[in-house]
Amino acid sequence: MLGLKLKTDPRWVKNAVEQNIEEILTDHAYCEQKAASHAISLMVNFPEYPELVKTMVDLAREELAHFKMVHLLIEQRGFTLGRERKDPYVRDLMKFVRKGLGRETMMMDKLLFAAMIEARSCERFKVLHDHIEDRELAQFYYDLMASEARHYITFIKLAKQYLDPEAVDKRWEEWLEYEASIISNYGISETIHG
Amino acid sequence: MLGLKLKTDPRWVKNAVEQNIEEILTDHAYCEQKAASHAISLMVNFPEYPELVKTMVDLAREELAHFKMVHLLIEQRGFTLGRERKDPYVRDLMKFVRKGLGRETMMMDKLLFAAMIEARSCERFKVLHDHIEDRELAQFYYDLMASEARHYITFIKLAKQYLDPEAVDKRWEEWLEYEASIISNYGISETIHG
Repeated sequence: MLGLKLKTDPRWVKNAVEQNIEEILTDHAYCEQKAASHAISLMVNFPEYPELVKTMVDLAREELAHFKMVHLLIEQRGFTLGRERKDPYVRDLMKFVRKGLGRETMMMDKLLFAAMIEARSCERFKVLHDHIEDRELAQFYYDLMASEARHYITFIKLAKQYLDPEAVDKRWEEWLEYEASIISNYGISETIHG
Repeated sequence: MLGLKLKTDPRWVKNAVEQNIEEILTDHAYCEQKAASHAISLMVNFPEYPELVKTMVDLAREELAHFKMVHLLIEQRGFTLGRERKDPYVRDLMKFVRKGLGRETMMMDKLLFAAMIEARSCERFKVLHDHIEDRELAQFYYDLMASEARHYITFIKLAKQYLDPEAVDKRWEEWLEYEASIISNYGISETIHG
């Protein structure tokens, strides 16, 4: 799916997620918030690209709408949003963003970093949809899955609009390889990327 | 207006703003972005207050919608959004937020800090509406003025909902005094708070 080299073991849902729905919902809320904040940082860092700015502001608003939906699910279940969780997977991915090689290289990697998270989140949401017992949540993850797939395409398209499309394809292949090398450390904890 | 101790001299529009509409629009876009980012940071820092979280996520989405409107005005005039501007007024205000006195004190000051910026921005937008020659922009600032006034009320209300209302009123008086002591350094440059 979306070129990912490794699939998530569905036991992640049974062993980690269903044991602790409050935890996964809080973690998920912050995934949406971080996606919004990353979109904002892209528009702040690359203001001279009007299409990027417009796409990112719409994306940030959409991610915040998702945050709001997750927050509602948290409230409906009698939970309270917890404190922000660290996301070691995202921190590991961030290390692959090249620095000091100029703005265009940085822009390419930041767009592909975002595309990567969307792609993996999409895959994780599909696993949740297919295996989670709570049917309301299953449907919710199905709907979000489609958004994540759309966002993944958006980031790749933006990169190809402003940068050499062949270089983007080549670098994306490297991102997929890198992601495969780190995701094998995950699939065990009660977080979206855990 | 809104308790502010000092009014902006309308010559700020003639001497600073109208000389450089591109500059003020870029600065304004980032004011909206920073307001969105500050709302997000409030919901991340105080997740255990559900009303605050819900209000902040809606506010962040609204500020991003304003950013989008400013970006459109920039494009329509054939300009490009510039790089992020520093906002020395906001940096000066931030110094008045008390740290190390516990979460509730911090929350009160962060809400009043936001209320203060909304109040001053409202006043500045009124000056822009009343004195700017570009009638489309004048109308735009009139509409935004109403939003800023509404947001100012939202922040004060939230503070009073979760904290001792009398303590909030007392502290707000201190914020107004402090703001008056710094705003006299401004009113000369081509930024919303300049």
